[in-house]
Amino acid sequence: MANNNMAWQRKDLLGLEELSKDEIELMLYTADKFIEISKRPIKKVPALRGKTVVHLFFEPSTRTRTSFELAAKRLSCDTIGVSASSSSILKGETIKDTARNIEAMNVDIIVIRHSASGSAHRLSESVKASVINAGDGCHEHPTQGLLDLFTIRQRKPKVAGLKVSIIGDIMHSRVARSNIWALTKLGADVTVCAPSTLMPPEIEKMGVRATNNVDEAIAGADVLNILRIQLERQKKVYFPSTMEYIRNFGINKERLKGAKKDLLIMHPGPINRGVELDPDIADGPYSVILDQVTNGLAVRMAALYLVSQGRDKSAKRDK
Amino acid sequence: MANNNMAWQRKDLLGLEELSKDEIELMLYTADKFIEISKRPIKKVPALRGKTVVHLFFEPSTRTRTSFELAAKRLSCDTIGVSASSSSILKGETIKDTARNIEAMNVDIIVIRHSASGSAHRLSESVKASVINAGDGCHEHPTQGLLDLFTIRQRKPKVAGLKVSIIGDIMHSRVARSNIWALTKLGADVTVCAPSTLMPPEIEKMGVRATNNVDEAIAGADVLNILRIQLERQKKVYFPSTMEYIRNFGINKERLKGAKKDLLIMHPGPINRGVELDPDIADGPYSVILDQVTNGLAVRMAALYLVSQGRDKSAKRDK
Amino acid sequence: MANNNMAWQRKDLLGLEELSKDEIELMLYTADKFIEISKRPIKKVPALRGKTVVHLFFEPSTRTRTSFELAAKRLSCDTIGVSASSSSILKGETIKDTARNIEAMNVDIIVIRHSASGSAHRLSESVKASVINAGDGCHEHPTQGLLDLFTIRQRKPKVAGLKVSIIGDIMHSRVARSNIWALTKLGADVTVCAPSTLMPPEIEKMGVRATNNVDEAIAGADVLNILRIQLERQKKVYFPSTMEYIRNFGINKERLKGAKKDLLIMHPGPINRGVELDPDIADGPYSVILDQVTNGLAVRMAALYLVSQGRDKSAKRDK
Repeated sequence: MANNNMAWQRKDLLGLEELSKDEIELMLYTADKFIEISKRPIKKVPALRGKTVVHLFFEPSTRTRTSFELAAKRLSCDTIGVSASSSSILKGETIKDTARNIEAMNVDIIVIRHSASGSAHRLSESVKASVINAGDGCHEHPTQGLLDLFTIRQRKPKVAGLKVSIIGDIMHSRVARSNIWALTKLGADVTVCAPSTLMPPEIEKMGVRATNNVDEAIAGADVLNILRIQLERQKKVYFPSTMEYIRNFGINKERLKGAKKDLLIMHPGPINRGVELDPDIADGPYSVILDQVTNGLAVRMAALYLVSQGRDKSAKRDK
Repeated sequence: MANNNMAWQRKDLLGLEELSKDEIELMLYTADKFIEISKRPIKKVPALRGKTVVHLFFEPSTRTRTSFELAAKRLSCDTIGVSASSSSILKGETIKDTARNIEAMNVDIIVIRHSASGSAHRLSESVKASVINAGDGCHEHPTQGLLDLFTIRQRKPKVAGLKVSIIGDIMHSRVARSNIWALTKLGADVTVCAPSTLMPPEIEKMGVRATNNVDEAIAGADVLNILRIQLERQKKVYFPSTMEYIRNFGINKERLKGAKKDLLIMHPGPINRGVELDPDIADGPYSVILDQVTNGLAVRMAALYLVSQGRDKSAKRDK
Repeated sequence: MANNNMAWQRKDLLGLEELSKDEIELMLYTADKFIEISKRPIKKVPALRGKTVVHLFFEPSTRTRTSFELAAKRLSCDTIGVSASSSSILKGETIKDTARNIEAMNVDIIVIRHSASGSAHRLSESVKASVINAGDGCHEHPTQGLLDLFTIRQRKPKVAGLKVSIIGDIMHSRVARSNIWALTKLGADVTVCAPSTLMPPEIEKMGVRATNNVDEAIAGADVLNILRIQLERQKKVYFPSTMEYIRNFGINKERLKGAKKDLLIMHPGPINRGVELDPDIADGPYSVILDQVTNGLAVRMAALYLVSQGRDKSAKRDK
């Protein structure tokens, strides 16, 4: 890691598309420093003591929200959660009004998840607080992209030239998009694999190879990132039946017969066991799925820490 | 501020009706001391460390609840939220039983919001814990009244003789009622303005002037406090249509043409933009709406701090 | 208390059935040490600072959850709540997956409430984190059993030979089951009393006497533990009408005429006032119901503290 004495300049973490390779490296380097804290008997450092973090979740979430909340607590932040079912939002207030009201309480960081693509970016323009995108529609989920990259690098130190296949509903997946931005910037060789109805047109422009053939995606791959089939995000039916999806795209022992021996299997969770991924693969030797969860917390600590530093710097620049 | 070396004697903050001018001044004085804490890099003081605050919200709320929670955290309290959708309340337990059970856990302060007028007062009689009223039906919302007064005083140091007009659904507004008590005690000249169906009978007995003519309420006013049209709290329809309300009571540029140049525009939020208040006024130079939010947090810190002191005093008196 | 210098060896607190008399005594002894903390002006000790506790509640709960959360905060734990309405669980994830994901975030203790009997035990096998059962279906609610025992012992130092009657829906009551295990291990003479439709077959095998006659259960009793009629947990109707239940099993002044003068009345709450218990008895001189709530918090502090120690020990044994 070359750039560990670089400083983070941005007040926000909105997406991986706009980050440089060096910025991505800095995030991973910082996460690596934080990973040890969660293994201590006293899992807490005073790094962000007295900072206020608001988790503004307009979509339901257990794992991302829990991960962000624990990350904030382990840095000694004060945290407040505001969910979509709360009243102001139901009362018809705009996101911008909600955010500016939150900011007026001298909040330092707003972590937002929202179903609209671009919502985190728009929010960032309205507030001086740091904004971290915890998932915006089908657009980006940058901490997921970073934690996936972090997990790959734990096992495969050199990402450049690595063959990574992302399999599933590429069209609706912010996880896929953030992964593609991060991996291609670091020089990985990325393949995306989906039924043709779930493959975005012109996806190759992102610098990836596209295929509808899952065996092709597996052959020679160092990493398989299996996406969740998110029936809840699909407005219409994109494949004939779950059974047909399993038959054509479900990852099981049989299908992995020709796979590399040091293959990594990743999944952002929650897993539909027996649909996109067989239980014995999810819990098998290739799987680094629980490592992803552990690493996610460290990555989110890094994100909270760095945007907090970046905000101070951007505030000074504004003077 | 004359009475800053007076001590707070009450265990509760239930309403502004029963407070003396000196007690109101003490709240504002204390809030003023706390406002600086939220501007520090480390927004936290140990003033109420190890005290337990329960937020007992029977009505949905984002901003008041967030404001109270952050206030408690910045004073280093431990906080627990209990919402109406929780089970004991659904299981048919009375408020009194809920409160006494909470108190039995050695809770210091209960912040309650409830749709029934008088609920905070009744609760206060059942428990030794301090009670702060965060809104009881159409009755009072004392911290809102105090933060409105605080915001006025930031810009208009002398409240006595100031012309303040409160415009909107006066009938159902606990914000209006708490504002009227506070403002009249400090000698302001208060006008309330509403459609006649939303004007409480005999409102003049509270020491205010009443009008149905919004232009009359604006002329010569130093402060306009614009209330939210709370369709959710109205049991029946009080005006023919939203369009008609906008035409007759909506505050916009045109209507403010003859207003004072140093007019303050206030709104308790969340704003129905384009209904009771035009966006360009809400975000315009007269508006102190976000200052209200910032000040609200300091006022709530003051309320938590003073009732905590008052409780110790009333406990000693009881011995 | 003989065994106060014994150390807790288990990583979990799943039920009272598997605990020895000495382990139960150790829990009570530890709770007794913690009861004083909640009476201090600063109700907080650093005993579990930097430990992470997740409250995983698949059933709604106010009092048990609040009690556990406050217990954790008073020991300086970081706490996160995950409720059944959160998304991963709705998204069809298994409890095991949810738990393993939570654990991957280096969580120390998982407090679980779930409608399935045995869920806490199964969870415990899947994770290295400590598991505390906060109620599993109709099976056990060990902290309730312990707090009931603790409350009895505050007033009746010698439990052996004490006559305790548990009255109500014995069939569906995890409270009854945990009480029976704890009381019989300490040598109490336990009677259970229910309508025959709510009496489990062969209940006498647990070492208790069974009766359908409430007057028989009251005569000579030192303690009455009155269960809540949980209409929400009954799949079908077990008694003809609430009126009939009141007539035959409701505890009121009249019915207590022949009772012992130093009788204790307990209830796990929330009370259906006027159904299983008359208000004047619930608030009368026999009642120790609010003491149960106060003691519950100390018992939960003890449970969190001891399983945390036990986990360290079991981790060392595994090496």
